[in-house]
Amino acid sequence: MGGVNTAERAPKQDRSRATRQRLLEAAVACLAERGWTGSTVTVVAERAGVSRGAAQHHFPTREDLFTAAVEYVAEERSTALRALFPQGAADDDRRAVVAALVDLYTGPLFRAALHLWVAASNEDQLRPQVTELEARVGRETHRIAVDLLGADETRPGARETVQGLLDMARGLGLANLLTDDRARRERVVTQWAALLDEAL
Amino acid sequence: MGGVNTAERAPKQDRSRATRQRLLEAAVACLAERGWTGSTVTVVAERAGVSRGAAQHHFPTREDLFTAAVEYVAEERSTALRALFPQGAADDDRRAVVAALVDLYTGPLFRAALHLWVAASNEDQLRPQVTELEARVGRETHRIAVDLLGADETRPGARETVQGLLDMARGLGLANLLTDDRARRERVVTQWAALLDEAL
Repeated sequence: MGGVNTAERAPKQDRSRATRQRLLEAAVACLAERGWTGSTVTVVAERAGVSRGAAQHHFPTREDLFTAAVEYVAEERSTALRALFPQGAADDDRRAVVAALVDLYTGPLFRAALHLWVAASNEDQLRPQVTELEARVGRETHRIAVDLLGADETRPGARETVQGLLDMARGLGLANLLTDDRARRERVVTQWAALLDEAL
Repeated sequence: MGGVNTAERAPKQDRSRATRQRLLEAAVACLAERGWTGSTVTVVAERAGVSRGAAQHHFPTREDLFTAAVEYVAEERSTALRALFPQGAADDDRRAVVAALVDLYTGPLFRAALHLWVAASNEDQLRPQVTELEARVGRETHRIAVDLLGADETRPGARETVQGLLDMARGLGLANLLTDDRARRERVVTQWAALLDEAL
């Protein structure tokens, strides 16, 4: 591999990475807006301004594209969440951490993921990939929650306290699907952050 | 209205009610198994052994049929839940009540409701009916939870404590969609029932 080839390859790899990223972001937006039925590789390629062939080069199947998209955006959001609290939660800051965790489940990413989960529950072709994806994203979110809340998982019940909190966060996301549930959600977050504070 | 007419009408009304009920139960099962896309009046009528015309006599639109179905089954389950704890929860029985509330969100009814909610988030025609339905069922479930848990809603935070518990229950339902989450769910229920006990 000579110097010229490497120099030529680098921008090509950058372009390829940029294309991939545009496809992933378009796929999540599409899934959130149109649901699984309305989300195809063709629709996403068009939205991203990429040829269908190029899209299929990156993602051979529809299932590949949409599971990769939800994973990509989930990772972006996890990174952003960690960056919000670089030192973890101070003791008087648990409410802010709980609110930020709950925020993971409102907005387009959660809507997209929900469409994917629900479709996977009826489609055998989609199910294995989504089940794995859900497990991976769930484990990572749990790790972040434990770190940011400063939970000591060696204490009995601490693990389940955090798990229940994340289940509550998902339920709050569901409650926000059809109506703007913000006001109620904030009251619930305040109350459970206080209960959690005692428990942890 | 003579005696003969009344006598003739009674069995006809019974038959009509039985037909309606068969349609509602078939609609929930269909929605849970096939999702919104696969659920039409024709498919449900066939499953219930009812003519398409008779089905449309009871439910003029597809939206009417499926929202009525989810509401009907939700009411059945609410009634059954109240019957489980006719005196409400004894103080040492809160875990059983929490477990029974969480059970509302596993199984075919929750799957059916989830399909309906998610479809409504993208379909303008379905959205208003499902939003109203969700509010009605949500209020009724909250009332049951308050009664069975013996929560005193005049105490600050008690209302939000119960709401957060029901959000957690919905989140646990979601976590059970693709995998059998029973073992983890039971541990979370045990821990959150203990937290609730202190909080209430």
